[in-house]
Amino acid sequence: MNILSAADFNILPGSSNCYPTLIQQALKQIPEGSCLRFLPGTYNFLPGNAIPFSLRVSNSEQQDTLYGAVFGEGLHNITLDWQGSQLLFHEDLSPFVFLGCSNIQLQNVSVDWELPFSAEATVAHSSENRADIIIDPQRYPYRVHRGELLFAREDGTESPLFGVMEFDVHTRKVRPEAGDTFPKVTASPVGPGMVRLNGEFSTPPKSGNILVLRHGKRIHPGLLADHCSQFQVSAVTMHHCCGLGMLFQFCRGVTASQVVFSPSTGREIFSGHDDGLHFSNCSGHLLIEHCGFWGLMDDPINVHGTSVRILEISGPSSLRCGFIHPQSYGFSKWACPGDQISCLDRETLAPFGNMTVEHFQLLGEKEFLITFSEPLPSTLVVGDALENLTNTPSVTCCYNHFGSCRGRGMLVSKPQPVEIHHYLFESSGSAILIPGDANQWYESGACHQVSIHDNVFWECCTSQYQFCSGVISIEPEIPTPEKNTGFHENISVSNNTFISQGKSPCLYAKCCTGLSFCGNTIFSPQPDSPLLQQEYCSEVYQEENHLTLLATPGLSIQG
Amino acid sequence: MNILSAADFNILPGSSNCYPTLIQQALKQIPEGSCLRFLPGTYNFLPGNAIPFSLRVSNSEQQDTLYGAVFGEGLHNITLDWQGSQLLFHEDLSPFVFLGCSNIQLQNVSVDWELPFSAEATVAHSSENRADIIIDPQRYPYRVHRGELLFAREDGTESPLFGVMEFDVHTRKVRPEAGDTFPKVTASPVGPGMVRLNGEFSTPPKSGNILVLRHGKRIHPGLLADHCSQFQVSAVTMHHCCGLGMLFQFCRGVTASQVVFSPSTGREIFSGHDDGLHFSNCSGHLLIEHCGFWGLMDDPINVHGTSVRILEISGPSSLRCGFIHPQSYGFSKWACPGDQISCLDRETLAPFGNMTVEHFQLLGEKEFLITFSEPLPSTLVVGDALENLTNTPSVTCCYNHFGSCRGRGMLVSKPQPVEIHHYLFESSGSAILIPGDANQWYESGACHQVSIHDNVFWECCTSQYQFCSGVISIEPEIPTPEKNTGFHENISVSNNTFISQGKSPCLYAKCCTGLSFCGNTIFSPQPDSPLLQQEYCSEVYQEENHLTLLATPGLSIQG
Repeated sequence: MNILSAADFNILPGSSNCYPTLIQQALKQIPEGSCLRFLPGTYNFLPGNAIPFSLRVSNSEQQDTLYGAVFGEGLHNITLDWQGSQLLFHEDLSPFVFLGCSNIQLQNVSVDWELPFSAEATVAHSSENRADIIIDPQRYPYRVHRGELLFAREDGTESPLFGVMEFDVHTRKVRPEAGDTFPKVTASPVGPGMVRLNGEFSTPPKSGNILVLRHGKRIHPGLLADHCSQFQVSAVTMHHCCGLGMLFQFCRGVTASQVVFSPSTGREIFSGHDDGLHFSNCSGHLLIEHCGFWGLMDDPINVHGTSVRILEISGPSSLRCGFIHPQSYGFSKWACPGDQISCLDRETLAPFGNMTVEHFQLLGEKEFLITFSEPLPSTLVVGDALENLTNTPSVTCCYNHFGSCRGRGMLVSKPQPVEIHHYLFESSGSAILIPGDANQWYESGACHQVSIHDNVFWECCTSQYQFCSGVISIEPEIPTPEKNTGFHENISVSNNTFISQGKSPCLYAKCCTGLSFCGNTIFSPQPDSPLLQQEYCSEVYQEENHLTLLATPGLSIQG
Repeated sequence: MNILSAADFNILPGSSNCYPTLIQQALKQIPEGSCLRFLPGTYNFLPGNAIPFSLRVSNSEQQDTLYGAVFGEGLHNITLDWQGSQLLFHEDLSPFVFLGCSNIQLQNVSVDWELPFSAEATVAHSSENRADIIIDPQRYPYRVHRGELLFAREDGTESPLFGVMEFDVHTRKVRPEAGDTFPKVTASPVGPGMVRLNGEFSTPPKSGNILVLRHGKRIHPGLLADHCSQFQVSAVTMHHCCGLGMLFQFCRGVTASQVVFSPSTGREIFSGHDDGLHFSNCSGHLLIEHCGFWGLMDDPINVHGTSVRILEISGPSSLRCGFIHPQSYGFSKWACPGDQISCLDRETLAPFGNMTVEHFQLLGEKEFLITFSEPLPSTLVVGDALENLTNTPSVTCCYNHFGSCRGRGMLVSKPQPVEIHHYLFESSGSAILIPGDANQWYESGACHQVSIHDNVFWECCTSQYQFCSGVISIEPEIPTPEKNTGFHENISVSNNTFISQGKSPCLYAKCCTGLSFCGNTIFSPQPDSPLLQQEYCSEVYQEENHLTLLATPGLSIQG
């Protein structure tokens, strides 16, 4: 490998607003097969000169112009080795952007923001209709204006509070039962460093507990890879990011190893602003191993596609379709010639037909025209959905730690094989969610082979979020579930250890055929702790599961 | 099975000082093959009329006369089904005593004391030389007299404080690093419900934390089975006991299923006074499954024998030997004709010789004469030790939970096969200790086959006790370890999950041959977390162990 020093391109540790330009120039110059090696140190990316670009970014708020700090386009066989450097940011931007690249390796770097896009506060006291909270104005400068709590940004703008999460001060986990239950609030000033939140608190936040005050928009992922292939990230720490942690969209083949999300020193709870690793419409194989997730304000890993609604049968082999979820508008390469497309019945979500794309053309932002090599299935009607089977990856996730985070743990809905093993899950929502819908999020099709084995689930699913009926939830949204008891297929949950609170079942499954729950060990404070709860399933196997009572104060068992 | 109602023997729920006598009479009358079924309810064993008996009780303080509440001798094929009853005691006694019985099944009962033999206190404030603590005098009546903290017993006597354990008020686990570090203290009264403990505190107890104040003598096990065979205990809850939890000595074949130790409602921390299940000089197979241990003030499970010292070569086939540890004095059947005996070199603990007992005779309390069918090995010298190989059981322990307790978790030192699997360990000391000595405790020989697999070790070994060098400690005490690198043999630690604090190694091994540490998953906050630490070992195999960093605030990894 051809090793080049970033220093030779005048990229040195320190403070500069020229880093983005210098790095972009260097990446354009270095030949394929190079490793660009950065001198270790802190790179303080002063505001200004971030690289502007335009792209539709999955599961994020859309913005005409986006900004990237380390920006590569059309690169091949390049390694960026930061040798343990810290990158410090001040703007709303993506630290890393790679568009249409192949064989990229990003390694040995940590990322943080001087002034993050979330804040922390401590609950002083509360009642059913108000909570007085303490905010460090040095760390999180704010003001209250006309009932709004506004956080100052470094560019002089202000960012309003949009959500609050309560964390237990001792366990630093989401307060049990408190998930997404914080009400809408108005703010009023109380005194220096103290703000009153006014609202209807069904469960008033507890004195001493820590609140994460969510503000800032979900625009820029910490890393954005679009239409890349064979992308590797290793030994990368994200202490913060303004949107999704790392977003891979329309990528083929991704390996994430030793990627860590964790609050930087001095912060108690939060790291990333939203999800951790987000894979949208990817293909090939995804390997995620030896990664850790702590303090994310949304799901650590989400692997999904984008399904679309059929708006019009425009010819014997042609359809006019629409993107439904605004965060999927404008995907200009939702399908390419040769891609395999399946139809989904909107009532049952049952797949039918398998067609090959001949032509794909966007019609503005929200619609497109698609033509197939074959005639359309005769049963297809307007309102059904399409799923791109080519843009579905196989997934191996292993040896990862999902620590204290908001939301669910791992979301996956892909027809290729998925293996999840040797995890430690401490998710406050469902540790694993296998959804499926073509009526609300338009993100997910059926899974055909999922193996979940040798994991430890430690007191998961203690708080409420959407689709969290079990520690593992197989929870498709099907309008007529009785008509599709085999939406998901061949899901095996074996040889896992569940440390349960005795409330949520270990496995909740709906509309699944070939479901196996075998050889699991469950420790629970409840002798009648629910293990498997199922609806509309067929071919369900359960054997050799062992429930042992968790010894706790007050426990008594007498047969 | 012949089902008899205890009510027909005038044994009814309520309060009585006649229960011991009535039960003893009933057990004498009922024929073999009977199930004595007790009406469910609370049986309040008022003081007086407990059954006196005399016996040497392993690992306990010796007393000429012991007392039992439910007392059976020479019973065969009897089931005692309490149908969920609660037994409440007031004296220093053993709730259950079985001597020379076979095929006994004890089930569906819980045990507690009105006034326990331990107390709890809350730390008000402390400094380096004193701690003011709050004791509820209603719950734990006490007085301070001449510098001693004395707890009142129901019989009018008083019981002095002998030890203190500090527990974290939030986790209710032993305060990390605090194990057996509490100093000797004197007491002085401060005011109603408050006592000052004066001492040299290297780590002053923390305000708000809970102290368990240990008093009471270790005389009466909660259950005592001596020279029994095929003993089964199931669905038995011990909320308290005055000594060891359940002691099986010189028993052949024991099954413990759904045995739980847990504090009764209203107590914060402690359940049993000392160990949980203690097996001394047992044989046959021991099966311990689906049991839970929380709040014990000593090791949950201890399986060991008693070795003895050779005092004199009294003939070509005869030895005079001595019991060394006072808690083993007077074992009148330490060996029986036909038993196989091995010698242990006192310097290397290497076994040699294998002899058959012809004659065994106690010489007072501390010594005995033993004669073998064969001549003594020529290398045997005075000072070497003897081990009874016949009185060694094989052990299967599975699906058990070791929650917050003082001390180590599972202690085992037996030459028969041992399998430990599907546990959840939260031990504050070593989760598993495989000791070995014939110089101090005189309890333990070598292990020849131990398999530890598919367990979860959750933050174990955070506090200091004797022999706790690793989460799993193979730690024989051999005066010249370099001369015996194969004391323990064939120990396999595989497919376990360790959630580590990054300090103690997962496995510490000394003087072991054929040691395998493979396929384990380790989550640790330290990238250089020690996995295996070994001394004087041979044939050590390590492969396919995976270390993942525990995501925690402040964690940063950059390769």
